[in-house]
Amino acid sequence: MPTPKILIQLDSDSHASSFDAVVAVDAGVDQLLQYPNIEASNVQGLVHGVMFTRSPAELKNTAIFIGGYNVIAGEAIGKEIAKTFFGPIRVSTMFDGNGSNTTAAAAVLCAYRHITPHQTTALVLGGTGPVGGRVARLLLRNGAEVYLTSRDVSRADSAKKEILERVGGAAKDSSATRIHAIGSDTIDSVLPEANVVFGCGAAGYELLSEEKLCSATNLRVAIDLNAVPPAGLGGIGVNEKAMRRGDRVDYGAIGVGGLKMKIHRRAIQKLFEQNDAFFDAEEIFAIGQELEAAR
Amino acid sequence: MPTPKILIQLDSDSHASSFDAVVAVDAGVDQLLQYPNIEASNVQGLVHGVMFTRSPAELKNTAIFIGGYNVIAGEAIGKEIAKTFFGPIRVSTMFDGNGSNTTAAAAVLCAYRHITPHQTTALVLGGTGPVGGRVARLLLRNGAEVYLTSRDVSRADSAKKEILERVGGAAKDSSATRIHAIGSDTIDSVLPEANVVFGCGAAGYELLSEEKLCSATNLRVAIDLNAVPPAGLGGIGVNEKAMRRGDRVDYGAIGVGGLKMKIHRRAIQKLFEQNDAFFDAEEIFAIGQELEAAR
Amino acid sequence: MPTPKILIQLDSDSHASSFDAVVAVDAGVDQLLQYPNIEASNVQGLVHGVMFTRSPAELKNTAIFIGGYNVIAGEAIGKEIAKTFFGPIRVSTMFDGNGSNTTAAAAVLCAYRHITPHQTTALVLGGTGPVGGRVARLLLRNGAEVYLTSRDVSRADSAKKEILERVGGAAKDSSATRIHAIGSDTIDSVLPEANVVFGCGAAGYELLSEEKLCSATNLRVAIDLNAVPPAGLGGIGVNEKAMRRGDRVDYGAIGVGGLKMKIHRRAIQKLFEQNDAFFDAEEIFAIGQELEAAR
Repeated sequence: MPTPKILIQLDSDSHASSFDAVVAVDAGVDQLLQYPNIEASNVQGLVHGVMFTRSPAELKNTAIFIGGYNVIAGEAIGKEIAKTFFGPIRVSTMFDGNGSNTTAAAAVLCAYRHITPHQTTALVLGGTGPVGGRVARLLLRNGAEVYLTSRDVSRADSAKKEILERVGGAAKDSSATRIHAIGSDTIDSVLPEANVVFGCGAAGYELLSEEKLCSATNLRVAIDLNAVPPAGLGGIGVNEKAMRRGDRVDYGAIGVGGLKMKIHRRAIQKLFEQNDAFFDAEEIFAIGQELEAAR
Repeated sequence: MPTPKILIQLDSDSHASSFDAVVAVDAGVDQLLQYPNIEASNVQGLVHGVMFTRSPAELKNTAIFIGGYNVIAGEAIGKEIAKTFFGPIRVSTMFDGNGSNTTAAAAVLCAYRHITPHQTTALVLGGTGPVGGRVARLLLRNGAEVYLTSRDVSRADSAKKEILERVGGAAKDSSATRIHAIGSDTIDSVLPEANVVFGCGAAGYELLSEEKLCSATNLRVAIDLNAVPPAGLGGIGVNEKAMRRGDRVDYGAIGVGGLKMKIHRRAIQKLFEQNDAFFDAEEIFAIGQELEAAR
Repeated sequence: MPTPKILIQLDSDSHASSFDAVVAVDAGVDQLLQYPNIEASNVQGLVHGVMFTRSPAELKNTAIFIGGYNVIAGEAIGKEIAKTFFGPIRVSTMFDGNGSNTTAAAAVLCAYRHITPHQTTALVLGGTGPVGGRVARLLLRNGAEVYLTSRDVSRADSAKKEILERVGGAAKDSSATRIHAIGSDTIDSVLPEANVVFGCGAAGYELLSEEKLCSATNLRVAIDLNAVPPAGLGGIGVNEKAMRRGDRVDYGAIGVGGLKMKIHRRAIQKLFEQNDAFFDAEEIFAIGQELEAAR
């Protein structure tokens, strides 16, 4: 009998996500262990428990998934896990708090079906949330010019700085010239240049009207990640998937959802191919790229 | 590999019932996800998680079980689940808070082994609790004349009204003439006509003495659902199953338990045959009828 | 299909041990049900749920594991479980709160690879904790002369009395002459006679210096169960396993860990061979002896 694949679901919510659980089962996990109400202080004991129960050669059959609505809390859990491992005694870990990484990866990859990454000017509306920040980061890494918006320009600026910190290293300086934090009131001046626009704002707000969207003549792709009416990008239906409107193709949240699900499932499977991976936005995007290449 | 059958166990208790869990496993569930401490406010997120993770064609392989000691809390959870589904995007759901539905169905079906449903006059003692109310409802639906008792006649009356609401529709008016709420002090006047008596009261109380029970000459079946001494119906042992006493056959709580368990298991299995069932007392009773027909 | 093996993991911690969970899966458990936050008051309902869901002949396929950091709380859970069972309606149960039983059994068995049980004088340093107490108890049962130490001699004395209570029966009197509670300041006077020394103290304290350890000429085995530096027994590395130093062999905590894991896994498997076992220190030690005999 092959060693059972065990996934430890660490979730900061009072009930561990049923969404993440079903995806894990469908990805082939043999034993799911759900841990709700996780705070950073709970991590060490639970991680020791997976480090010391299987031989080094079998550690790749145990993995950790970090989820939960609160993305910030999830990131703190991720840091605590990384601190707990030592040497080769570790298990692969995936972070997808509130679906932020798989959603951002899927959204950017949907756009890349229609535009060329490094020749893109992108407008990320509502870019200060977890999904928006990750969309901007992935675009930036792939060579795009990125305009990140918020109703409050100082929040946009904080988000920009955080994104550059996460990009880090040699790429940080070259990226810094390509990302611009702007207030929502400045969108009109950037819109004519944009090739792609992402709606990443909170539910309940229209970020851009249908009229303005249609006036943007260079726009080739518009992706609205808001699943609850009203649409964040005026006129885009939640189920739309590569819906052609003139020179533009549109995606709604559920239209992106199919690829998001495939990426999520494939990422879970890849956790069990090695014992030392940490899947964050970039790694999950790379997994999505492989899926897109095989399409 | 067939799609794994996932059961979401939503339970209002601080620890999800181990009873319901073992039955689920024995019914062939591949992956049980236990969620304790469930309130109506927790439902939407967990239900969305099962609605949006599998394709419509696969949704029948996910199901929800609602359990927990507090039947009222469980019913509120059930209503919230029904509200969350939309269109064909739903999963089959079974309600069996504190075993109320499977117990009531098994009790009534045990009685029907010996009497004819629509020619029955039934006495439901302690009929204001979750099991008693369901026993009365099932009897009523099957054409019986039902006397529902409580020490407090106004509580019996409230229970009667609630039962009629649940029967609803065209059946409500015809049912209204056949259900009677009476105080415990009036039992003696009804007892001579009764063909079947159910003891559904709280643990620790004798509802009817052995002497009175034996004086009821038209009684063909007596079923005591109290598992803890003293017996609710005097002289009936908890393990008795179709124990013959003159013209009467008797069942104790464990005597009914075998059929209850079979119904519970079969109902879990049937959850996975479609994606839009809601199993409450009537549907669970119908499953029991099929099992009885195949006996 | 064979009846699935269900293990109920009752854990007093806020999150049920992932360590115990992984071992259970690797021991072949088909369905693990994790119950955290368990207090004695939660036990009855959960135990009833496993008593009444399977037929007597199938009850051996359900079992209970009691874990959690707080060994005292776990013992209270164990007592409550024993009280809940009646007659033959019971399931096998294993107690290993904080790994105390498997660790103590493995430590004593490692020693017995090198010394003869009933010809042994043993020094149990830090013997008032759950592991130390169990090490002393197992040594005592196997005929050794045992010196149990604590910085506070009155605590050592309490531990000694508790151990004798647990030994109980006819063995209690003969054991009473062979166990001695001493203060840490008296160790020097006993050390020359000791054949084996166990370091069972709390993390962070050196119980015996390397110099003193090396001065003990009759010492054949030294076992340090402290996994966190500094070593409890000076100079013993945490990974050492039968490391020879002159006439002495040494074990560190991880050096004992391999056998501990094997015992833990095997004990879980044996839970499912009958429905009425209760595995505490002695039974788990006996399982370890079988493993050692087959080595």
